Amino acid sequence: MSAQRLKIGCAGLGRMGKRHALNFLERTPRAELVAASSPDPVELEWAKTHLEPFGVRLYQNYDDMLKHEGLVAVVVASATAVHAEQALKAIAADKHVLCEKPISTSVEVSQSVIDAAAKKPHLKVMCGFSRRFDKSYRDAYEKMQAGMIGTPSVLRSQTCDKLDPSGFFVAYAEFSGGIFVDCSIHDIDLALWFFGKESKIKSVSAVGITAVEPDLRKHNDRDNAVGLVEFHDGRIAFFYASRMMAAGQEDVTEIIGTKGKLAVNTQPALNHVNIYDGSGIRREIPQTYYDRFEYAFVTEAQEFSAACLDDLPLPVELASSVLAVRIGAALQESLITQKKIFFDENGERCELARL
Amino acid sequence: MSAQRLKIGCAGLGRMGKRHALNFLERTPRAELVAASSPDPVELEWAKTHLEPFGVRLYQNYDDMLKHEGLVAVVVASATAVHAEQALKAIAADKHVLCEKPISTSVEVSQSVIDAAAKKPHLKVMCGFSRRFDKSYRDAYEKMQAGMIGTPSVLRSQTCDKLDPSGFFVAYAEFSGGIFVDCSIHDIDLALWFFGKESKIKSVSAVGITAVEPDLRKHNDRDNAVGLVEFHDGRIAFFYASRMMAAGQEDVTEIIGTKGKLAVNTQPALNHVNIYDGSGIRREIPQTYYDRFEYAFVTEAQEFSAACLDDLPLPVELASSVLAVRIGAALQESLITQKKIFFDENGERCELARL
Amino acid sequence: MSAQRLKIGCAGLGRMGKRHALNFLERTPRAELVAASSPDPVELEWAKTHLEPFGVRLYQNYDDMLKHEGLVAVVVASATAVHAEQALKAIAADKHVLCEKPISTSVEVSQSVIDAAAKKPHLKVMCGFSRRFDKSYRDAYEKMQAGMIGTPSVLRSQTCDKLDPSGFFVAYAEFSGGIFVDCSIHDIDLALWFFGKESKIKSVSAVGITAVEPDLRKHNDRDNAVGLVEFHDGRIAFFYASRMMAAGQEDVTEIIGTKGKLAVNTQPALNHVNIYDGSGIRREIPQTYYDRFEYAFVTEAQEFSAACLDDLPLPVELASSVLAVRIGAALQESLITQKKIFFDENGERCELARL
Amino acid sequence: MSAQRLKIGCAGLGRMGKRHALNFLERTPRAELVAASSPDPVELEWAKTHLEPFGVRLYQNYDDMLKHEGLVAVVVASATAVHAEQALKAIAADKHVLCEKPISTSVEVSQSVIDAAAKKPHLKVMCGFSRRFDKSYRDAYEKMQAGMIGTPSVLRSQTCDKLDPSGFFVAYAEFSGGIFVDCSIHDIDLALWFFGKESKIKSVSAVGITAVEPDLRKHNDRDNAVGLVEFHDGRIAFFYASRMMAAGQEDVTEIIGTKGKLAVNTQPALNHVNIYDGSGIRREIPQTYYDRFEYAFVTEAQEFSAACLDDLPLPVELASSVLAVRIGAALQESLITQKKIFFDENGERCELARL
Repeated sequence: MSAQRLKIGCAGLGRMGKRHALNFLERTPRAELVAASSPDPVELEWAKTHLEPFGVRLYQNYDDMLKHEGLVAVVVASATAVHAEQALKAIAADKHVLCEKPISTSVEVSQSVIDAAAKKPHLKVMCGFSRRFDKSYRDAYEKMQAGMIGTPSVLRSQTCDKLDPSGFFVAYAEFSGGIFVDCSIHDIDLALWFFGKESKIKSVSAVGITAVEPDLRKHNDRDNAVGLVEFHDGRIAFFYASRMMAAGQEDVTEIIGTKGKLAVNTQPALNHVNIYDGSGIRREIPQTYYDRFEYAFVTEAQEFSAACLDDLPLPVELASSVLAVRIGAALQESLITQKKIFFDENGERCELARL
Repeated sequence: MSAQRLKIGCAGLGRMGKRHALNFLERTPRAELVAASSPDPVELEWAKTHLEPFGVRLYQNYDDMLKHEGLVAVVVASATAVHAEQALKAIAADKHVLCEKPISTSVEVSQSVIDAAAKKPHLKVMCGFSRRFDKSYRDAYEKMQAGMIGTPSVLRSQTCDKLDPSGFFVAYAEFSGGIFVDCSIHDIDLALWFFGKESKIKSVSAVGITAVEPDLRKHNDRDNAVGLVEFHDGRIAFFYASRMMAAGQEDVTEIIGTKGKLAVNTQPALNHVNIYDGSGIRREIPQTYYDRFEYAFVTEAQEFSAACLDDLPLPVELASSVLAVRIGAALQESLITQKKIFFDENGERCELARL
Repeated sequence: MSAQRLKIGCAGLGRMGKRHALNFLERTPRAELVAASSPDPVELEWAKTHLEPFGVRLYQNYDDMLKHEGLVAVVVASATAVHAEQALKAIAADKHVLCEKPISTSVEVSQSVIDAAAKKPHLKVMCGFSRRFDKSYRDAYEKMQAGMIGTPSVLRSQTCDKLDPSGFFVAYAEFSGGIFVDCSIHDIDLALWFFGKESKIKSVSAVGITAVEPDLRKHNDRDNAVGLVEFHDGRIAFFYASRMMAAGQEDVTEIIGTKGKLAVNTQPALNHVNIYDGSGIRREIPQTYYDRFEYAFVTEAQEFSAACLDDLPLPVELASSVLAVRIGAALQESLITQKKIFFDENGERCELARL
Repeated sequence: MSAQRLKIGCAGLGRMGKRHALNFLERTPRAELVAASSPDPVELEWAKTHLEPFGVRLYQNYDDMLKHEGLVAVVVASATAVHAEQALKAIAADKHVLCEKPISTSVEVSQSVIDAAAKKPHLKVMCGFSRRFDKSYRDAYEKMQAGMIGTPSVLRSQTCDKLDPSGFFVAYAEFSGGIFVDCSIHDIDLALWFFGKESKIKSVSAVGITAVEPDLRKHNDRDNAVGLVEFHDGRIAFFYASRMMAAGQEDVTEIIGTKGKLAVNTQPALNHVNIYDGSGIRREIPQTYYDRFEYAFVTEAQEFSAACLDDLPLPVELASSVLAVRIGAALQESLITQKKIFFDENGERCELARL
């Protein structure tokens, strides 16, 4: 391990961008945040206080940042709509890329990033599926790999957000790709990770409702949805996503095998405190996705840096991330059309009769 | 409340029959078990030791038992195949009937019992959906009714049995109606209870696998299955049933509303003991359905007796129990045909295009 | 097992008396409640509705009840002050006795009951330490006996009541013997049970406070107290008792051995329901001692009946129950005098220098 | 907040020293580890790989390190026996000091550090009581301060280590000050923190056993001990320390108030994973103190740095840390002499009769 540090720039300084920038600045010993870009004056103002004094050069323009001398890698944490474009430019400029999920809500556009990356095998290009860096998920994965549950056969997973009373997610739904692409994408990624590459998708079906935000329908979205995914090798996964949890963020996964089960976060808790009062015994839970997975993002930054510096394999394969978008988009389609969608063993869509 | 006691006879003395017989004999102060019948010599032998000494008259023949002097009610706890026939005979003989679930795996046959009961409104005829008598489910129901979770919108429920290594359930599958009719029927009943009569079924879809018992396929059954049910009023329920739990019985339900969530048994436990040893902290869980719901069966016996003696409304409506079978059978069909099934607002099957 | 039933009478129909009477009437198949006595007209009025119609003969006078024809056993559930006197009379009248705890707050008086019982070995005389009949405690005991935790060495146990805002316990403190004799007596009994007869007490010391009810001091009592007990064979037990729990009844025990630990009720819960709302995730807990141990009292009634009918050993030895009072009284003395109290290996009090 | 960084040196590179060194090197953005010292060649060898390449100057001699140019602060993480001496030298050299607990096992020696620090009020001198930096303890403290439990009246706390089968702690006991000074010191510190400065100690008493390591007796130590502490303002604390936990580290605290209770870590867990298998449901727990409190040490390093740089009040007062040693030493004395020890309101030892 060399003492060298990865010179990285952060594209986008919104909610997620700020976090990535600070994680690379303060909590990634082997990286050096040297640049950051945002077209947004408010975001740049923030950066003048929180990044510039520590030696980070600020850019209004992403293309200019890509030319920053000595820049070796980029973390793309801008709006989803420009993820793919910025990733492609970075690859063209010969930079390693850590891209926030999803690369794109379009399967085709996502595929174009895979194709570009495939032509530059010396570059590390990864989509940040944060849950893969969480200690609990990793512990569960290792236990499964060690044979503790026999053959993993059924995966239940949910990504459920606390209700945002501002209704922000209605406007957001216009560009998010829908609840399966935005939320369940994490659960889909987990299924692909835990079941492995041999598991080929066979069918998807989904239902959903608008229990609190009927306006989501104008964007073909729902606030609660359940999706079923069958795999050709006799496994199933089912997902629940919701925008209306009352207590906080509830991301739960169960991996059920022929000899046992691993449950991740079936008893959510913010910390080790329990409060005993007239209402019983209670504990608080994380309020947001980031509250729950903060350290996973730090680990992601550290491992991405190490992979770039030491030329190690990436912890998440790009092709898998694009497949997750594909499944999410199919679930979203099934949700809206109410039809079950089938795939043959080559991953091509087909009719039930053709299976 | 009179001091009178309900003279009841028990039909069938198999696994469930024995339990019902003893519950009415020993744990139902307002009932008096006066008779029991079984065509099986082994079961009758058991009864000679455990029932006869306490004044219970034994019969080889169900029809004879129905003529037992003073008999007022019957608990039908025989093989599923004869539930409906025995219930019909009891109604014809003017007896109250507590019938083990399901009345029949056939919707038509089940309906014939409703029709017979409808002609004798003075009789109490109930299908024993034990979960409705469980303290925790009742507490959750009351909290929902009190408005604690706003509008209940999504119900997740599972009935998961410990793996029976004898493979008994393969042979059993020939007559059980399949995993949705046998196991998920409880979860379906919960959805009907918690969502209420106004919720009309709109669609069902299901997938399933044989992870441990491929032989189930010859009876059109699966050992793990997931089902989705949509209701016309914008609610959804999803069910998971399994025959291969490693730790024990895991019957879990979540009722998710617009303002909160009620979770029943998300942290299963046999009792209040935790064991700390080199493997961590662990607790044991109930091994069988009866381990988990023993006291619910006692309450069922007590409330059925009180309903008969005091002419009170039954805690479970017969029509709802038949509707549960109907939904279970549709899920089973979807599981096998791989097709989503739609229903119009009158409960008639239809094509998606007709909705 | 004969079909004979134990004819029993209940002395006292206050809070505990009612429960014992109904448990013997309705939930103890092998017993027959034939009589009940109380000098209190209000209690007798209750009994006219709840007991008399079911064949229970009522008495104003305990002595008269003892003469009830065919009476074989008595459950003494009257005020603590008359427990011993009624037990002695019952023994004199050749009746089996189940006596609510404590036999007496006086060690000497308690001993007189042992002496009387010793002269009539054909009688079953037991003090009702309910916790010994609780499924969880029994499970823990069996696991310890099976060697799961190596040598049990440290026992932590607490009996903590929900705050009774009526302040009833201040008046009650005049006769209760104090918080160690009234509450911790259960924990002391558990220590004697789990550590076994070979463990001889070596020292006791205690401290206490009046956090909510300073008036308890006039009865030499406290509302929160902690006691330490050393045993000559190198084991220790420590107890916490409180009258001011906010959430409900919290009776918790840990048995720590050289190879593991058993924890009973470290995560109290009323039932299997969890409530998710804006305040987090919470569950309710039992509000009273009886809420927590209701079924233990039923088991106690059933096992006492079986012991009398089938001449089986009693599940709780009388001498142990008196020793528990002795330790409780010594802790209470230490609490007030602030002095540590020592005992030699024969159980005689001594100075530290004499040990 | 300036962008300046605290130039700090680490004294000692043993188990704790390594952790402190790496925390200041990698996880404390506002600090710069510039030097480290150890007389141990093996430790220095480690440092050549892990510290030197990142710009840390290594010293064999502590005194030399103190002369490192630009050094502003020192973290003392050497053997307990030299904590005080090194802290005094650092103060003399005008450096801020973060000293591992305890400053000394001797009350007098500890006091000498307070005295030296008092003469240089511009220096920040803090003893590292890590638990004060743990998120859960802080959350509990804030909730208590916000009045959620009324008046905190009883504190139960335990520091229980997993059994180290090497028996290392027997040799260690010669210098550790005993189980109360080594382990319970954390719990004592918590009592001082949660009860506040107004709570003056009134009495201590303790008992202990050697359940697994009789050899501890030659160092006047025990492997399991329970201590009681009374305060003059009517509060009590009780502590349990053990060296023989089977499952792992179990550090648990309950703060019981007149209106509620806060429990910290009554349900220990390593992460969010639960394992379901034939033995039930289990979870793993932290194996060591550092496993449990790793992030607290990071926060400690960050907050100490900020206090030095921005001249902020220290999160832990030095006098409180010395008082904790004093109480620990008194408990240890009581454990060995078997006598209860009393203190008057001025903190002077007295006889019970003089109170």
